Formats: sequence, structure tokens, C-alpha cells
Amino acid sequence: MQSFKYYAPTYVAFGRDTENRVAELVKKYGGTKVLLHYGGQSAIKSGLLPKVEKILSEAGIEYVKLGGVVPNPRLSMVRKGIEVCKQEGVDFLLAVGGGSVIDSCKAISSGRFYEGDVWTLYEHKDHATKYLPIGCILTIPAAGSETSDGSVITNDEVEGWLKKDYCVDEFRCKFAIMNPELTYTLPAWQTACGITDMMMHTMERYFSKDDDMEITDALAEALLRTCMQEGKKVLENPTDYNSRAQIMWAGSLAHNDLTGCGTSGDWATHCLEHELSGMFDVSHGAGLAAVWGSWARYTRGENMPRFARFAKNVMGVDTAGLIDLDAAEAGIQAMEQFFRSIGMPTNIHDLIGKEISDAEIADMADKCSTGDTHTVGGLKALCMADMVEIYKMAR
Amino acid sequence: MQSFKYYAPTYVAFGRDTENRVAELVKKYGGTKVLLHYGGQSAIKSGLLPKVEKILSEAGIEYVKLGGVVPNPRLSMVRKGIEVCKQEGVDFLLAVGGGSVIDSCKAISSGRFYEGDVWTLYEHKDHATKYLPIGCILTIPAAGSETSDGSVITNDEVEGWLKKDYCVDEFRCKFAIMNPELTYTLPAWQTACGITDMMMHTMERYFSKDDDMEITDALAEALLRTCMQEGKKVLENPTDYNSRAQIMWAGSLAHNDLTGCGTSGDWATHCLEHELSGMFDVSHGAGLAAVWGSWARYTRGENMPRFARFAKNVMGVDTAGLIDLDAAEAGIQAMEQFFRSIGMPTNIHDLIGKEISDAEIADMADKCSTGDTHTVGGLKALCMADMVEIYKMAR
Repeated sequence: MQSFKYYAPTYVAFGRDTENRVAELVKKYGGTKVLLHYGGQSAIKSGLLPKVEKILSEAGIEYVKLGGVVPNPRLSMVRKGIEVCKQEGVDFLLAVGGGSVIDSCKAISSGRFYEGDVWTLYEHKDHATKYLPIGCILTIPAAGSETSDGSVITNDEVEGWLKKDYCVDEFRCKFAIMNPELTYTLPAWQTACGITDMMMHTMERYFSKDDDMEITDALAEALLRTCMQEGKKVLENPTDYNSRAQIMWAGSLAHNDLTGCGTSGDWATHCLEHELSGMFDVSHGAGLAAVWGSWARYTRGENMPRFARFAKNVMGVDTAGLIDLDAAEAGIQAMEQFFRSIGMPTNIHDLIGKEISDAEIADMADKCSTGDTHTVGGLKALCMADMVEIYKMAR
Repeated sequence: MQSFKYYAPTYVAFGRDTENRVAELVKKYGGTKVLLHYGGQSAIKSGLLPKVEKILSEAGIEYVKLGGVVPNPRLSMVRKGIEVCKQEGVDFLLAVGGGSVIDSCKAISSGRFYEGDVWTLYEHKDHATKYLPIGCILTIPAAGSETSDGSVITNDEVEGWLKKDYCVDEFRCKFAIMNPELTYTLPAWQTACGITDMMMHTMERYFSKDDDMEITDALAEALLRTCMQEGKKVLENPTDYNSRAQIMWAGSLAHNDLTGCGTSGDWATHCLEHELSGMFDVSHGAGLAAVWGSWARYTRGENMPRFARFAKNVMGVDTAGLIDLDAAEAGIQAMEQFFRSIGMPTNIHDLIGKEISDAEIADMADKCSTGDTHTVGGLKALCMADMVEIYKMAR
């Protein structure tokens, strides 16, 4: 059992109409001048943004709006946000949207008082010491950013773009407002990408070298089974409140560290995917589904019994009489089958709609390994050559 | 699905040697003058208390000691603590011990700045507005007080004593230091009482009227199965680090509200037990085991399918072909069998070592229902007559 810290201080207000508490919660955490950060037109069309503006105004809370955050949120937008915060004297960041908007808020939070370039933080070359507090109204269950300590930003200012993360406890939202009704209008594709993302957050922690944290494993398995069961329901009936609620809460629990307590985790699939979405601007969840099976087959030898356990406890494979390798393969196939059943790709061709070239693979592996100078993955440390191999298996 | 709030802000430092971080964490949360609150001689004999004193001293943190907290912690000790805090200018409470010591700290925290009598708060007649911050080094996994918002205090100043709780978010510990090695010397009886207590914290939330929060149910079931599996291991081998770790972490997760998100819960067993331990000063965990089976049989009709699900998913009963009533009964019997296997009583006679009288039962039911003026229990609202019936079934 690895020693661990667990710190998930976000105040979660979950249920119908919880967005009505936004002014109360902003005030509770000291906000007087808010940056209202959001994505595209959907927040306006749905009526959520106007509603939030009305609630803030009526409570006497000043705000300034900054919309236009896109999936794989951009550094250029972060810079804009930092500028607005400085000019307007913003003291609280309110994200209305999904993980991209929250991650953009987090980057703005870290850059607001930082004297250097905010990208330096994402390059892990420095730490900020002062942050703006963040709250959110979640509309897309997926990234788990509403309770996580992480933020992933795409640097759109460099050739070929670069996607990097920065993780600090100061990035934990002060509050997260989660009303499942706000997710009714999410298209099936985005819903499925979200389900995949949250399952992968759990699986990245589950597939580790450690086999001695039974309670964490049992909770992770329960979470994964629930995601599959409720995910199918929600795709069949997008306005089923209860299923939307399960999926929404699962997204937060999958990434607030609960499913990784005492285990060391892997995270290679995320690293491999970041290059894919960095290069092709694809949905993160779909990118994860496209490479996971290949990653699993390439690395399973490091802990075959764990893959066999996964097959039995998560995928419901009858593993009696099977050797671990066969059980593991059956489990991987079953998970790929699930991904396909919710419309996810399980290879790169289906993800990007064309054959990926050797040069593109080489480029991604080069970036992912920072020119073969470092490895990724806790279960098996992958060097550049390993990455090339996995991308080719997944092509 | 019930709306819910989830707020578990405690910083958990889990693992070997984590007690070495005590001064760093006290400082992080603003402590400069500490009340070191503890129980009996075991904290001294084990060397933990002297170690903590040394670490605080070396870090330049002043402290004053107050030991002598007993199980079912007493109001008289709380008053003493409040007095010491006022006289010595204490600004941080550090509990070294189990739930009793932490609960005593919580009561002191609420009473320190409160102008009225602290017991008024436990009578739910008023709310304190200012609290002292609390941290803890946990040595007994059981009550879950290290991450919960609750505190239970026994008023030893009134005839027949009274046990009452007070729950506020300000009671959430700022930090909880959890080193499984510190629990190696816990006697089997206390270990088993702790396992029962944490399982009951989960079961009180699980047995509700609600059947629509699958993710919470799945997590609760995983937690319960783990407690039984690892509980048996830890009783066989008290110095098994991994099993001690599972049990220790399970105790926190069982009571930080994770297993109750979106469900309404019951809590009648706790209320019934508080009268037992108030009257006979028995261990809380053992008292819960003594009455749970009778409570379950008395109330299961309110949600028989849930008891049948419990039998299958938690107790591993083969429920195929059984009607719900038979499945439920088999599940209750299996849980009672587990309780007995770890040395717990499953009736009041085995708990107190004698026949309980009708007068004593009447007295407990009268107190528990405040003279038949209110009911307890979310699954089935129990009035005084129901309580008498359950106590008699459990006698």
C-alpha cells in the first residue's frame, strides 16, 4: 500500500435547481467581482447564462463575461482571461460549462498573480504562489475538473501545438454546482465521450503495479460497473434524471482521487491521447477509447492478474478455468465492445477518419516522450519506441 | 434521487510515519497554541504522545495537555477543555486518539466562543457561530469522526445520563493523520467494535426508502464487502499493515457522507444504541450489533427489495428463486453471523451480560422518543411503541 494524501475540499451542491445557489456560494467564498467564463452559444441559448447573470445581479455581485472557450482549451484564451481579471479587478472565477471551461479558469487562476509567463507553470518549470478562487456550474460530466486538482491547456501559439497539464491543490474548486437537468441536452456523442473520460480516469488509477489496496479497487470496480450500466440508460433516454445524476456524480468521484488512494496509477493512455487531440483536435474521451485497448495489450504482461481481475469484476467475464492471459484478453475485448456500443472508436482510423502516417506517429511519440528523454506510465514505463509501437497497434 | 450536498474538506495524510507531519499541518491551519487532547495511558505508553510533544516543541508550537477522555465522552470533560482553552489562549485543538477524543475536541471547539451553555448546542436549541479548528492523529478506526461533521457527547451531569449529537460543517477536521501502524496494538474486541461501527455507518445510509442512486449503493456495497473481508484478516493478523490500512480508510469513507450521497438514510439503529450505551456504558459498536438484526426484521417491510439486494450484493446470498422476504431474512442472518464471527453480540443479553428489564426498555424508549414526542428512522419512522417492540425483540 502506497502512502497517500486525500484532499477533496470542493463543496458540492448536487440536484435540481442548485444553480439558484450560485450567488450565495460565490459570496460564501469571498467573491465580489466575478469573471463569468463560458464556452459557446449553448450556455446562452439554454438560458443558463442569462439566469446566472440575473442571480448575480440581484445579489449585488458584479461580473464581467468572457465566452468562447473551446474543447482542448487554448492558451491564447487563458491570456485574455488573465488580462480581463487584472483590468477589471476580478476576485473570483466562475466557470459555467464543462472541463474545458473549468480548466481555462484554473489556468487564469494560476496566471493572475504570477509574474512570469503562465505557460511556464504548465511546463512544470515553476509554481505559482497565489491563486484566484474558482467555482463552477457544471454542464458536461466528463473531465472531473470540478473536483480535481488538474488543468490541461493547449498551447496554440507554437507550431503543431502542445498540450500540457498543471496540477496543484489550489486548483480544487471552492464549490461545484451540479444539476443533472443541465445535461439533458448534451448530444449522444458528447455524453459518450464523457462517460469514456470518467471511466478512463478510474482505469488509469486502477491499472497499477499495486495489488494491495482492496478498498480502493472495490470502489473503482463499483464505479466502472455503474458507469457502464447507467451510461447505456442515459444514451437510450437522455432526459432520465436518475441516470444523468449517476453519470454526473460518477464523473466527479472518478477524478477527485478517491479511486486512486494508496495505488500508484498509470496515466500513459492519457499521455498518448493528449498527443492525438493535440495533433488532430479530436474529443479527449474518444481519443482515449481509440488507444486504450492497444495500450492494455502492450502493457498487460506487467500485471496480468490485475487485468484478469478487471475482466471478472468489472466486465463480468466468466473467468473460471481461464489462464490470466485469456481472461485479460476477454476483459479488454469486452471493454472495447462497450466503447463501440456507445459509439466510441477503438482505433485511430475510426477516430480521425483517415489512415495515420508513420511520420505523424513518430511526431506524436517524439512529443510525448519529449524527444525520448522521459517515459510515461506507472504500470510499464513507456519510452518513445514503446509509444510508436502502441500507436501502430492502434492505427 | 435526493438532492445532496457533499463536503469533505479534511486533508488526509495516510500512511507510515505520517504523524511526523503533525507540526507542519498544525502550522498550515494556523495553530500556534495547541490543546493536546487524548484518552488514557495507552497514548503515553505507546510513545505516540511523547513523540507528538517532541515534534510540536521542536517546531516551536506551544501546547497544553488534557488527557482522560473516556469512551462515550463526557460533558464534564468538555467543560474542562473549554476552560483550559480560555485560560491558555489555545487556538488549535489536536486530538490524539479515536472518535471519543475527536468528538470531545469538537464539543470544546463549539463551546470555546459560545456564550451560552455548550450543552444547549447538543440539545439543538442553538448554533454556535465561531469554532476552534481541529486536527487529529487517529489511533482507532471506528467512529469516522476524523472526516465527519458529527460529535456525540454524553451528559454525565443529569440523572441517568443523556447522549446527544451535534453536527455542523465546522466540525470537519482540518487534517487527519492516519498511520495504520498506530492501530496494531488495538485489542481484538475494540477492533471488532470499530469494524461494526463503520459498517453500520454505511448501512444506516444504505437502508433508506430510496432505490434510485445506483452509484452510491454500489460504492456502499463495495465498502461493506471490503470491511468484512479485511476485518477477518485483521483479526487473524493484527499487525498486517495492508488489512489495517483498508479498515482504517474504510472507517473514514464510511462516515464522510460518500455512502449517503442522494439517499435519505435511516439512523434508527444509532438512536436505539445511543440509549443502550447511555444506560449501560457499553461499546457503541457492540451496541449497534446487538440491536441491528431486530431493527432490520421490524422495518424490512418498508423496502423488502432493498434487503433482498443487500443479501445478494453484500452478503453473497444466492437469492435465485427466493421471494424477497426469504432473501431478506437470509441476508440479515448472514450479517448477524458475521457479527458473531468477529465476537460481537447480536442481542442485548449478550451485550450487557444480563436480562434487560421491561422498565429499562421503557425508560430507553421514552428517552429515545423524548417522551413519545418524536420519531426516529428514515426507512420507517419509529414511535415509542415501535422502539419498545424492537428492544424486546433484541433482548
